[in-house]
Amino acid sequence: MTQDLGQLRQKIDLVDTELVKLLARRKQLVACVGEIKQAAGVPIYAPDREKALLKARRQEAEAAGVSPDLIEDLLRRMMRESYQAESDHGYQCAAPSLGPIVIVGGKGQMGLLFTKLFQLSGYHVASLDLDNQDQADQLLADAKLVVISVPINQTSVIVKELAGKMNPDCLLVDLTSRKREPLAAMLAAHTGPVMGLHPMFGPDVSSLAKQVIVHTPGRAVQKFDWLLQQFGLWGARLLPSEPAEHDHMMAIIQALRHFTTFAYGTYLHSENINLKQAAEFSSPIYRLELAMVGRLFAQDSQLYADIIFSSTEGKQLIRNYIEHLQQAVKLLDENDVQGFIQQFADTSEWFGPLRERLLQESSTMLERQQEHL
Amino acid sequence: MTQDLGQLRQKIDLVDTELVKLLARRKQLVACVGEIKQAAGVPIYAPDREKALLKARRQEAEAAGVSPDLIEDLLRRMMRESYQAESDHGYQCAAPSLGPIVIVGGKGQMGLLFTKLFQLSGYHVASLDLDNQDQADQLLADAKLVVISVPINQTSVIVKELAGKMNPDCLLVDLTSRKREPLAAMLAAHTGPVMGLHPMFGPDVSSLAKQVIVHTPGRAVQKFDWLLQQFGLWGARLLPSEPAEHDHMMAIIQALRHFTTFAYGTYLHSENINLKQAAEFSSPIYRLELAMVGRLFAQDSQLYADIIFSSTEGKQLIRNYIEHLQQAVKLLDENDVQGFIQQFADTSEWFGPLRERLLQESSTMLERQQEHL
Repeated sequence: MTQDLGQLRQKIDLVDTELVKLLARRKQLVACVGEIKQAAGVPIYAPDREKALLKARRQEAEAAGVSPDLIEDLLRRMMRESYQAESDHGYQCAAPSLGPIVIVGGKGQMGLLFTKLFQLSGYHVASLDLDNQDQADQLLADAKLVVISVPINQTSVIVKELAGKMNPDCLLVDLTSRKREPLAAMLAAHTGPVMGLHPMFGPDVSSLAKQVIVHTPGRAVQKFDWLLQQFGLWGARLLPSEPAEHDHMMAIIQALRHFTTFAYGTYLHSENINLKQAAEFSSPIYRLELAMVGRLFAQDSQLYADIIFSSTEGKQLIRNYIEHLQQAVKLLDENDVQGFIQQFADTSEWFGPLRERLLQESSTMLERQQEHL
Repeated sequence: MTQDLGQLRQKIDLVDTELVKLLARRKQLVACVGEIKQAAGVPIYAPDREKALLKARRQEAEAAGVSPDLIEDLLRRMMRESYQAESDHGYQCAAPSLGPIVIVGGKGQMGLLFTKLFQLSGYHVASLDLDNQDQADQLLADAKLVVISVPINQTSVIVKELAGKMNPDCLLVDLTSRKREPLAAMLAAHTGPVMGLHPMFGPDVSSLAKQVIVHTPGRAVQKFDWLLQQFGLWGARLLPSEPAEHDHMMAIIQALRHFTTFAYGTYLHSENINLKQAAEFSSPIYRLELAMVGRLFAQDSQLYADIIFSSTEGKQLIRNYIEHLQQAVKLLDENDVQGFIQQFADTSEWFGPLRERLLQESSTMLERQQEHL
């Protein structure tokens, strides 16, 4: 039996080696596609092509007795690699005759990411940061686009300092995670075109493919057509929003969530939980939750402080949530199992069909995570 | 350019079609491996073989200019499929001469899963559930292994009812998610071998490969060697633990976590948050967190009520946590950014090197999730 097993494993190895060769071949082809797209100014992310390709291969898999989900998962993983590779060739430039772009805070992580992306698209980019304050007046006077990429709590102050230093035809945008105050500050400091942007990702993304950028209107928004088009060329998806609406969603998604994660982490610390043991005992789902908590504490505390402390609405939601928890714990104090089940049912109904979709989504995610244990 | 792009895409399609063929071939080979393993009683999950295979292909990829991480991810996904396929062939039986197995609660979801697994391994399995109470005495008298698979809050009562009905050589185990009380109840009701088990997964797993089963000692544990071996043949990983230690970890991992998820979901409901919009605005990480919440409400409320309400230690941890939150919110009330940053730094240090590992793990996970948007 050992011999048979050994022979079969050799054959499987040959198949897998064949796969490596296919990947090398595919990589070459994708590189050619990247070159052509770059020359022609076609976005690297092509949702329709992706859809058609997946559908065709799923059908072939079905016919060959192979799981369609398996081939789709493999292809999606390969496409992620392709998007990263395609971006190596640089991007088409949506406004080739634009003058200099100035990134205020260009030495920060997000500033560096956008500097790289603009440069890969052929723009002239300058950074205005703590190291070259003396050049501020000159840089701003020449700029055709100024991008504010500084911490939220400094945004308004820094924008105010720029007042009157930009030409009226210069475009002004910010990249902070709230939009009402930054937009108001920009509109007050600049008479030209203004737009608020919120890139919904961190500076560590390997590509902008499928990443969301929220844009909120300020003044003369049609002047930003080329910029939004440029984001599309980088692969990003655009989500228009009103500033108040955006900030409301961020209070929930960022301030409340980050605060409870912070509190959960400091709580585990205060109880001095044996984390190593907790990780050992963890089912994939708790491992994932623990990863979300550990993740926060591996990042910049100032960034999280900014997000949490600068959102008045967020602070109120946090207080409401704690009050809600105090109500909920009464169910335990009174051993009210029926009350728990009733609330559970009500909220379950409120979630509606999204509930099943989220269950499905998280199950798939947990299976993928299980692969890597 | 459209023509060039079209031709390149055709070539990529050919590569992908080749991939489908490779998968079909691999599937056949894996099926043969499954048959041989089943006949020889070798576990389907072979960590050493997996490691060696990944290492070899990573080296080949490197040499061919292909990302080693890409080939590893693809192979892991393919291996997950293989584990599922291998289990279709049934499993070797670790105790072929064992008499009947009785699963108390055999019509429940977990009972059905273990019934299937035992049957696929050639055991004779009977269910004792609400529909055949009249056969209880006969079934229990004949049983060589009795598996208690009922809700936690009924375990002790049901175990008590079994007292004196089993032979002293019969093995008794339970599958509930706490271990102190169930073990005590089993030891009181049965004079023979006793062991507590906690399968750390839900009944919806597609295979036991890499899934963890915790086992806690009761009485005459060496009599369970074959059973633990059987779990290994199913692909499971075994984690020994003491009942008190296990229950402490579960209070944190299950009771506290499930309760806060419940409270967060009912809170979103009470604020009547626009979930559709929240999902649109969500970065991958919040989408994932939302999925965890929605997931809970798509499941059985009674199960969660059992887990939360039956754990005295868990209830206390929940109260401590809420108290901790009330302390933490004072940072906001007093606008104490420095205090926040200090606590953040302390907990960050307490997480230690695990912090970076969890960041890495979650980033990989988020990238995988991004593939599927």
